[in-house]
Amino acid sequence: MLAVHLEYGRIETRRVAKPRRGPGMALVRVLYAGICNTDLELQRGYYGFRGRPGHEFAGEVVQADDPPLAGKLVVGEINLSCENCDWCARGLGQHCPRRTVLGILKHPGAFAEFVVLPERNLHLVPPGIPSEQAVFVEPLAAACEILDQVKIPRGAPVAVLGDGKLGLLIAQVLQAHGARVHQFGRHKDKLRIAEHAGVVGELAGQTTPAASYDWVVDATGSPEGLQTAVAMTRPRGTVIMKSTVHGRVSIDTAPVIVNEITLVGSRCGRFEPALKLLAAGKVRVDEMISQVFPLAGAPRAPPNAAC
Amino acid sequence: MLAVHLEYGRIETRRVAKPRRGPGMALVRVLYAGICNTDLELQRGYYGFRGRPGHEFAGEVVQADDPPLAGKLVVGEINLSCENCDWCARGLGQHCPRRTVLGILKHPGAFAEFVVLPERNLHLVPPGIPSEQAVFVEPLAAACEILDQVKIPRGAPVAVLGDGKLGLLIAQVLQAHGARVHQFGRHKDKLRIAEHAGVVGELAGQTTPAASYDWVVDATGSPEGLQTAVAMTRPRGTVIMKSTVHGRVSIDTAPVIVNEITLVGSRCGRFEPALKLLAAGKVRVDEMISQVFPLAGAPRAPPNAAC
Repeated sequence: MLAVHLEYGRIETRRVAKPRRGPGMALVRVLYAGICNTDLELQRGYYGFRGRPGHEFAGEVVQADDPPLAGKLVVGEINLSCENCDWCARGLGQHCPRRTVLGILKHPGAFAEFVVLPERNLHLVPPGIPSEQAVFVEPLAAACEILDQVKIPRGAPVAVLGDGKLGLLIAQVLQAHGARVHQFGRHKDKLRIAEHAGVVGELAGQTTPAASYDWVVDATGSPEGLQTAVAMTRPRGTVIMKSTVHGRVSIDTAPVIVNEITLVGSRCGRFEPALKLLAAGKVRVDEMISQVFPLAGAPRAPPNAAC
Repeated sequence: MLAVHLEYGRIETRRVAKPRRGPGMALVRVLYAGICNTDLELQRGYYGFRGRPGHEFAGEVVQADDPPLAGKLVVGEINLSCENCDWCARGLGQHCPRRTVLGILKHPGAFAEFVVLPERNLHLVPPGIPSEQAVFVEPLAAACEILDQVKIPRGAPVAVLGDGKLGLLIAQVLQAHGARVHQFGRHKDKLRIAEHAGVVGELAGQTTPAASYDWVVDATGSPEGLQTAVAMTRPRGTVIMKSTVHGRVSIDTAPVIVNEITLVGSRCGRFEPALKLLAAGKVRVDEMISQVFPLAGAPRAPPNAAC
């Protein structure tokens, strides 16, 4: 089969053996895969990644232990947990210390014709959600994770910083939850996507409102995002940290302490609420697809192809 | 009266007019005042402070609107709030945007023979707590603040980093609360103070246990403390940030996000629980007094005189 290979920042496609599934695993034909900011960081050579990236996908089950699965459109959770440790027993397999992670850590990713994942990681895509939308379930679940971690009251003003894919999904998820979302970004056309869902978009200028929100989400992907988010947060407010940034971030911790601000690191989420939101049409993703490439064209996909 | 004057890092004592109290205010004769890490930072010339520092004190009321207050031993909350804004209405005067702060922000501090504070800021010291112990109520309240912010289950292992005054108070408060406290510090003699209260002291070496605690308090006062605290915290765990550090802190935010760690900035606290703990003898402070100076000797007090 054809598969992407990334080695120390250099990307190419290769013909490789089609993977075999073990017991409890499913073989899935990948229909669409999304390029995430993490993939771009791997491509930039961070983390010395070598292997097959890709962790956002929608595909069709080819083989599985569970026969009715065959032929079904599925999406897959990316953490392959051990199912034996305390974390797994608590239902927190995403924090299993022995986990591998699809396309990120010791498990070949979805930028290939086929991918193998445990059947328990798969979720059926409800009818009505086309595969090119289903590919957004993984990042949408990461956006939904915020509501599993913190209780944002309905009607509360929330600032979302960043108008990349994750920022747009977060803005729409929180707006659908009932918050009054202000999204600060640098691209009028991107902000407009969330504006259709009722979000108020604001082009981020040199200054942002100081100490104005009880809830601020940093999804800028920038090392300066956290400091800006803290400055925008009211005393006793909460910053949700959604930006993975390579290297170290420099921050003045004094306002965090003096204003008793809480910072919450947030990563992957459950797929169920994401699938529900997509099925209900409460999150728009179509306009977030900037370009579609065939797998063979992966080396030509520009870095900004991340939708 | 005699009073300390600090100007851009230079400290001296001066004869100044005894302050007059306005309505609702009390004039207090200072018996003891404590040197806090914040005072040392002011002395190092940070923040361009110019004026009279000192915000930890115990004293005797000389004049007040409320006649029974006269002659009483009191301690005082340091935030002078406006009592008119939303924060004050919510009982969060310590976050009032118009506040002044005793010895820190636009209100002359306690390193003087007399200090003036609103009567509502004063707390009577119960019989049995001598004034040299009562001077610890303010930092002890800051330690107690942690339990007002986060719910630490009884029996939970907690790591406290730092064995300065605040670290020792925090370790004892959390131990008295029922947590199993491990304190990491650099001074055997200081660690021993909390060990008397049941805390397990450990001399911090080059390495600290990785991802081992659900609760970690950074009270190191060092720019590296936060990074160490994050590394010691288990996934979904909480770091309480108690270190005020001048300048910027450099931190790798990836483990905060990947492990979904919560960071909680924590500052001043209510005096009531602190007074209760002292009155019940659950926190030992006597051994934390390294030296006592008369006010006239303030310029000679070494930087490590902070108890």
